Formats: sequence, structure tokens, C-alpha cells
Amino acid sequence: MIKSNLIGFQTSSESKTFTIGVNPSTNEPLAGKFPNANKDEINFAVDQASKAFEIYSKISGKEKAEFLNAIAVEIEGLGDQLISRCCAESGLPEIRIKGEKGQTIAQLQMFANLVEDGSWLEATIDKAMLDREPIPKPDIRRILVPLGPVVVFAASNFPLAFSTAGGDTASALAAGNPVLVKAHRAHPGTSAMIGTAVVKAAERTGMPDGVFSLLHGSGEVVGQGLVKHPKIKAAGFTGSQKAGRLLYDLANQRLEPIPFFAEMGSVNPVLLLPSGLNQKTAVMLAGSITMGVGQFCTNPGIIISLEGTGLTGFINQLGDELSNVAPDVMLTKQICKSYNQEVKSLLTHKEITLEARADNSKNDNRGRATLVSVSGKAFINNPKLSEEVFGPYSLIIRCQNKSEIDQVLNCLDGQLTGSIIGDNSELSSYDSAVKIIEKKVGRLIFNNVPTGVEVCPSMQHGGPYPASSDSRFSSVGTAAIKRFVRPITYQSWPNDKLPDELKDNNPLNIWRVVDGQLTKDQ
Amino acid sequence: MIKSNLIGFQTSSESKTFTIGVNPSTNEPLAGKFPNANKDEINFAVDQASKAFEIYSKISGKEKAEFLNAIAVEIEGLGDQLISRCCAESGLPEIRIKGEKGQTIAQLQMFANLVEDGSWLEATIDKAMLDREPIPKPDIRRILVPLGPVVVFAASNFPLAFSTAGGDTASALAAGNPVLVKAHRAHPGTSAMIGTAVVKAAERTGMPDGVFSLLHGSGEVVGQGLVKHPKIKAAGFTGSQKAGRLLYDLANQRLEPIPFFAEMGSVNPVLLLPSGLNQKTAVMLAGSITMGVGQFCTNPGIIISLEGTGLTGFINQLGDELSNVAPDVMLTKQICKSYNQEVKSLLTHKEITLEARADNSKNDNRGRATLVSVSGKAFINNPKLSEEVFGPYSLIIRCQNKSEIDQVLNCLDGQLTGSIIGDNSELSSYDSAVKIIEKKVGRLIFNNVPTGVEVCPSMQHGGPYPASSDSRFSSVGTAAIKRFVRPITYQSWPNDKLPDELKDNNPLNIWRVVDGQLTKDQ
Repeated sequence: MIKSNLIGFQTSSESKTFTIGVNPSTNEPLAGKFPNANKDEINFAVDQASKAFEIYSKISGKEKAEFLNAIAVEIEGLGDQLISRCCAESGLPEIRIKGEKGQTIAQLQMFANLVEDGSWLEATIDKAMLDREPIPKPDIRRILVPLGPVVVFAASNFPLAFSTAGGDTASALAAGNPVLVKAHRAHPGTSAMIGTAVVKAAERTGMPDGVFSLLHGSGEVVGQGLVKHPKIKAAGFTGSQKAGRLLYDLANQRLEPIPFFAEMGSVNPVLLLPSGLNQKTAVMLAGSITMGVGQFCTNPGIIISLEGTGLTGFINQLGDELSNVAPDVMLTKQICKSYNQEVKSLLTHKEITLEARADNSKNDNRGRATLVSVSGKAFINNPKLSEEVFGPYSLIIRCQNKSEIDQVLNCLDGQLTGSIIGDNSELSSYDSAVKIIEKKVGRLIFNNVPTGVEVCPSMQHGGPYPASSDSRFSSVGTAAIKRFVRPITYQSWPNDKLPDELKDNNPLNIWRVVDGQLTKDQ
Repeated sequence: MIKSNLIGFQTSSESKTFTIGVNPSTNEPLAGKFPNANKDEINFAVDQASKAFEIYSKISGKEKAEFLNAIAVEIEGLGDQLISRCCAESGLPEIRIKGEKGQTIAQLQMFANLVEDGSWLEATIDKAMLDREPIPKPDIRRILVPLGPVVVFAASNFPLAFSTAGGDTASALAAGNPVLVKAHRAHPGTSAMIGTAVVKAAERTGMPDGVFSLLHGSGEVVGQGLVKHPKIKAAGFTGSQKAGRLLYDLANQRLEPIPFFAEMGSVNPVLLLPSGLNQKTAVMLAGSITMGVGQFCTNPGIIISLEGTGLTGFINQLGDELSNVAPDVMLTKQICKSYNQEVKSLLTHKEITLEARADNSKNDNRGRATLVSVSGKAFINNPKLSEEVFGPYSLIIRCQNKSEIDQVLNCLDGQLTGSIIGDNSELSSYDSAVKIIEKKVGRLIFNNVPTGVEVCPSMQHGGPYPASSDSRFSSVGTAAIKRFVRPITYQSWPNDKLPDELKDNNPLNIWRVVDGQLTKDQ
């Protein structure tokens, strides 16, 4: 395992301070000292990325696809070593990490497929009309071009799929931007292995030196240093609202502000209709609340339902299910400590009822599934209760009537998802609630749970603030590539000097809008 | 003419302070006292817009198209009164204002056509695969939805096409958002007439009360008050970099940051190749520099060329052309004063040579065309010279060689446009210069001038900062609508409750991406 920072095709270890991986299952340090990048190394990496951009921004979609597919192959080639290191650093079980590795590879291949065909570039052509009155219409052609070097912040809760070569990196590279990854401090070894795979793929497919760098270190030095660097043109982040907002503000306060895409999680409200109050729902929700020890950004943290015997019975069913889930190791000691403190603090509120809590005989970093409930009125009066608790926790809100449900929904901030569980026939009588939820979420789910984010063209992962910093973009699915491009228009530009996607005769045979009509015509 | 603020379908005149139009040709006040909106009126207008959003966000594309077309009809119906008031307030000639009225109407009709067909909503469908291993694939469908109430800042330099019912308003309304316009203080009467036309159209086509409001007043009270209001969800602005950045910062510092689209102008560099140094180019550039008394955001403020006898001759030709353009009235007394001060201040720099200046015997608000030149070296050493001078001014930069041209280009900030004038054969030997320009502009023009912004699907009006605050979006052309929408995904949602655009069988017969394939299939 290469422990240095990876700056383009070089390694660099100038610093005397290090990041060390820790196994959250044992609190023992893991092998390897990863030198934190210093300012010189950060500047050098950005300069290399900036130089690489000159070449990388101009290569063909086919070449970018080869690079992305090569990364997938290299990651596949890391074999069991990757899995065991990643499990050790994250506390996540092998089956989950193997699945996440598969998702990471699939994402890279998805973007490779997307950019191999140029149709995603929204090529738009309006032909000249030189005899138009009163003035001639010039030939105008538009296409998307990459922004420049992009910073990616690796996420703690997806050490593969949203980290070094995860969705942000894959989409930024696919768009034609060099990427600089700030490794997550909780999984430096995993980052190093994946980073080395990316570099190998870049060298093998003839990409320019500097197209990818991986830097270890703190958020203060490496993270903020990168976001403030004038040659950085965009950034992608998945993490807490506090860190996300701090970096978002830095990005916007720059002399030249840059897009900063922060996906900051949410409480993912579930509206449970009376027809959905049954054992099947309890099993489904318990699985979703405890999936990944509740450390998914789509974890259902709030469940809203009408008070009554149906709900009382359901709370018992869900409580039983959750109590039976054996507590598992959380991502880091600090995350588990925060989780325990937050739950403890919430339980001091006299209006909160503890409905169920999984036992944990072991005094370690295992997160105990916790179900609490509160009245609609108390929830409405206490904004603290609508904040995310990162872990296997959910709050049931017992409402007196539909109007109180609407009031509760109106108290919520922007969300990644909203779910409604019940019969289609019953759904019709919750029109006003549905309308409120629609305004607040990026994804609206019927009769299912929010965990499990399908990676596909129609996925929207991102929602009104603070779920994400910019609700107009998605961090999952093919649409994620649109975060890292901008349009450029060529007016009366010589045909032989236009990008191939805009040339007469459509040499790449892509979908284009020509004179207002979508066509593949030559 | 209704002089009150227009708040939805009501008029309101609570304040005792007023905006008064002034004729810049005479410095005389024009008829009408327009009461400045106070805080209560601002809050009421936003509340009305927020209520209107509940209805307006859900109406069909066909109904929105009727509304937009009705606005066009009402504006047409304002007849000569609108033209004379607008000319009086702006100092612009009748032919220009008539043309701008035509553009305003055409823009409204263009967006009506766009939204009448739902293809612009990027409907994307991934069908369920319930037998997929290891987990079933759910049905997922994505579409664009409006953001919420949008603030539009009317521009001084386009009192019709970028003001009350201009491109920003038309695109925000077309997207399904209520609009609140901050009237420009320099043309309150024009704003009032157009605002009344919009309200009439809204009433006639059954739009909800609050879908449109027009507020008079200052940037400090009305502009900032609107941008900071929590129920405002986006804003569009055309104006100075100073005002644009101030409002952009306010929008980003909100508890919930909102997209703030500022189009802040630029110097629109023109690279003049030796083959382009001729009388035809001089005539073309002189027309562009003085068009609208140089008050276009696409005014060519910097011309870069190789030193030599060809350039010396060309400077004489261009100087002669500019000297012969009779100075015309600028938009306001203050704008002309600032222009004169800026030119005077630049002429104190010893490295600047005054090449030509149009005469102006009249001591009034007429802007004199001014051509100055500077060496490449002096330009590189003085960042002040790369700033925009708002008026009929252009700076010729005399470069020693191609490398100095590249250095000059590297000194420039982001730009709306970049133009290259010369032969196609000569263009090939300026590859590095073209690459630098491409990175800095939203629109790249060959053998033409930047003024004249075609309104069409392929237009990009907006460029890297500070030309605009977000280079990923355009404020001109059909793409402008994308500024005011966000995606929402419906997962396993009952077909009968989906928006029509996402229903099985494609009832609206629109273009959609179904399982990765673009199709109009039913």
C-alpha cells in the first residue's frame, strides 16, 4: 500500500504529521502512517491538475470512457486486500463492503457508457439565416464544457461509493475535469488503495499527469486549502451540515465563487397512513432504520402518523423489531459517542417517550437501535426534534388529525426524501400533506423506505436546503455529471474547428437539437 | 398609468417617498410619482406570491403558455404611449425601443411555445424490474419542478427586454414560479405600464392572485429586502458587478441560500488577427462600440492585436469611424457622469494614448465615443485597465508578439463573449490564444462583433465569474428557464397521481428518456 500523498503520477510525503487508520471494532490502530499534505503539496497538486486540465478537457468521450473503465478494472483487481482493509477501517461488514465495491465499479462504468456517446453534451445548433430581415441570423452552436479542477471530499459513511473513486469523482472525471480527493481521515488505507488504482488506470490509458491526486490530512488544512485555491473550479462534498455549510460559505466568499455541492443528509420523513400500520411495514422500516447502523443519509429519522390504537400497536411491532436488531459497530468511535450523547440528550426532554432500545451488553462502539415518540404538538414546539440524529434512531410523531400532520410537515426543513406508506385509495385523502412533502424533498417514495438509492438516469439525490446546498443538482445517477460542466456557444465558428459534437453532418451520430428539433440527423 | 405598487391584483401606495422618472435628454422630471414599497408591502407581496405558488406551480404548460401569450398581447396593446414613455425615461431612440419591444414580445412567445410542449421538463423514466437480483429495481421517474417565488431586478440598459416582463420574468413565469419585480428607478413609468399589462393578462387568463408583483423603490430597501426574505427561492439580476456581488453575497449568506443569477457585464475582448485589420472591420467595430451609446453588456471594450503598420492604420480607420458617430444621450445623468469620470481617470495614466474621441459641443448627458490604446506590457502591469468602462469606449492593446497576446488574455477575468476577427487560415496559428479565450467566455464569435445577442436555444449569455455569478446558466434563450427549476424523483408512485408528463402511455406525447433511450413512445 502506498502511504504517500498521490500528486498526479508522483508520490509525496513532506510532512511529519500523519493520519492513522483505527479499527472501530477494537479501537486499535491499523497498519500504515499516511503523511498529511502540507501547503506546498496542496499547491503543487492544484498546479498539476490545472495543467492536466489543458489536455484532459479536450480528449474525446471515448478516451475518457477507457480511463473510467480502466479504473473499474484496477479496483476489481485490488481483490480481498481492499475488502479487508475497508472493513477494518469502517467497521462495516464484508457483505456491505463487497456490495459497495460493486456499486463503485458500476458507477464508473455507467459514466463511461454515458460519455462514450456525446448525446449528454446537449449539443444545440441554430443554423444561420443570412436573408433574415431586419438582420441576418448567425450560425450559433452550443455545447457543454468542463469547469476545471474539482475537489472531492470523501464521505465517512460510503468509504468506496462516495469516496476516492465514488460518484463525485466518477462524474467529475467523466465531465472532463481533473479531480483532487481529500481522503477521509477515517479510512486512509482504503483511500490509498483506491487512489493508487486510479493513478494506475490513468497511466495505462495515457491520461495527463495531474488528472487525479489524493491528499491526506485535516479538513482545516487540506479541505479548506483546496476549496480556497483560485485554480479550483468546483467541489463535491458528502457529510455533516456543519462542515458542509462552512465549506459552502468559503466557496462562495472567494473572489471568484465556485459551485460547492454539499449533500448534508436529512431526517427523511415517512408519512405512515392508517392503512400502512402493519407488521410488514414494521419489518421494512426496522430494516431501513438499522441499515448500515443507521448511517445512511437516507435513514428514515422521522415517522409521522395519526394517533390511535392502530399506531400504538404499530409502535409495539416496530419496537420489537428494532429491539431484536443486534447493535453493530459504527464508523468511528467519535460517531458512536456523538450518537449516544444525542440520544441521551433527547431522552431528557420530558415530552419524549422511549419506545424501544436494542440491548448492548458490550461497552464498545456499537450503535443501539432506538425508537422514541412525541406528540405532534410537542414536536411543533421544539425545533431541536427535527434535527438529524446520525445513527439507528427514529422518532415517531403522534398527530391528532390531518391538520396537525400538515403542521408537522410544515416544520421540516428541506429533505433528500419523503416516503408515504399506505393504500393508494387512502393517499387521495392526504392531498395537502403530499403537496407539502413535494415542496420539501428531492425524492418522493410510495410504499417503500428511503434507504436504497438506485443509481440510474431518473434518480434525484439532493433536495432543498439543507438536504443539499443546491437542489437543482443530483449527486447520484447520470445527472450528477451536470454539476461539473457549463455551456459554451460558438457563433459563426469555422466548421473544421468546432468540437466534433457540433460539426455539420453529425460525425459522432449523437442526439442534438437542430433548429429546435431533437434529431440524430447527419 | 397606474403609479402604485402592483401586489398581485391589488394596488398599494402606503409610502410617502416616491420614485420619479427623469428624462436624461433634458434632465427634466417626467409625469408621475411612484410610491416606494415599504416593508409591509414587500412582505405582503411575498406572501401573496407564496400563496400563488401553490396553484401556479401545478397548472399545465398549456395554461402557462396562454398567460405568457396574453402578456405579449397586452404589451402590444400599450401602443405608442409605451414607446414614448420608454424613450423619454431611457434617452434611447424610438427605433431601438420599438425593436426592444418586439424582442420582449418574441421572448414571451418563445417561452410560451417551449412550455406548451412538456419536452423541456426532461422527463426521465426507469421502469421497475421486480425480478432483478439481488434486489428488485423500483419504478423511478424524474421531472423538473419550479423553485418558488422569484425576484427579478429590472436592468437599466434594457428597459423592456431585461426588465419588468423581460427574459428573467418570462423564463421564471414559464418555469412555474410567481415573479416579484423590483422596478428600475430610472424607468418607473415604463415598469408601471408593463406591470399593468402583466396583471391584466394574469386576470384575463385566470392566473392566481399574487403570480406577479411590481415594487418600486431602492435597492437597499426593496432589492435587499426581497433577496433576504425566507419565502423567496431565487433571483435574477442584470447590472453592475458591485451591486450584483453585494446581492449575491446576501443570497448566499441566508439561513437557506438561494440561487442568485447575476449577469454583471464584461469587457468582451476582441482578438484582431492581422488579416482582419481593414476598413470593413473598423466600420463593424465602431458600430458595435457605439451601439446603444456603448451601454450593452456585450460591448467590445478591449481589442487585442499585434503591433505594426497594419494596426497603426487600423487604429486610424477605427478612430475616424468613432469620431464621426454623433454622441447620444446615455441612460441617466449619473451613468454619463461616471463614464466621463472613468475616461478622464484612465487618460491620466501616462501609458494610455488617446487615439480618438467624438466631439460633443452640447454640455449634456451625451456619451462621447472614445478610443484609447496601450502596449501589451503596460496592460499586463495594470489590472485597472481590464475593468469594464460602461459606455462607448474601447481600449486597443498593442502586443509585440503572439506570446504577449497570450499573456494579455491570461490577465482577463471571465467574460460574456470573446471574438476573433480574421481569416480562417490565420486562425490556425493562434491555437493557444483560442484555448485561453475558450476557458474564459460564455460565447466565442468568429468574424463578427459581440453585440447582437440572438435569442434562441443555442445561445449562452453568461460566462465565468465575474461576467455572471454562475457560468452554468444562461440568461438569454430557452435555456434560461433551467435557472428556475429543480428535479424531483417519484419512486413507485401511483400512475394516476403522477404528473401527466411522467404517466404511462405518455399522454402529452412529449420527448422522454425511458430506460436510457430518448423516445416519444406511448
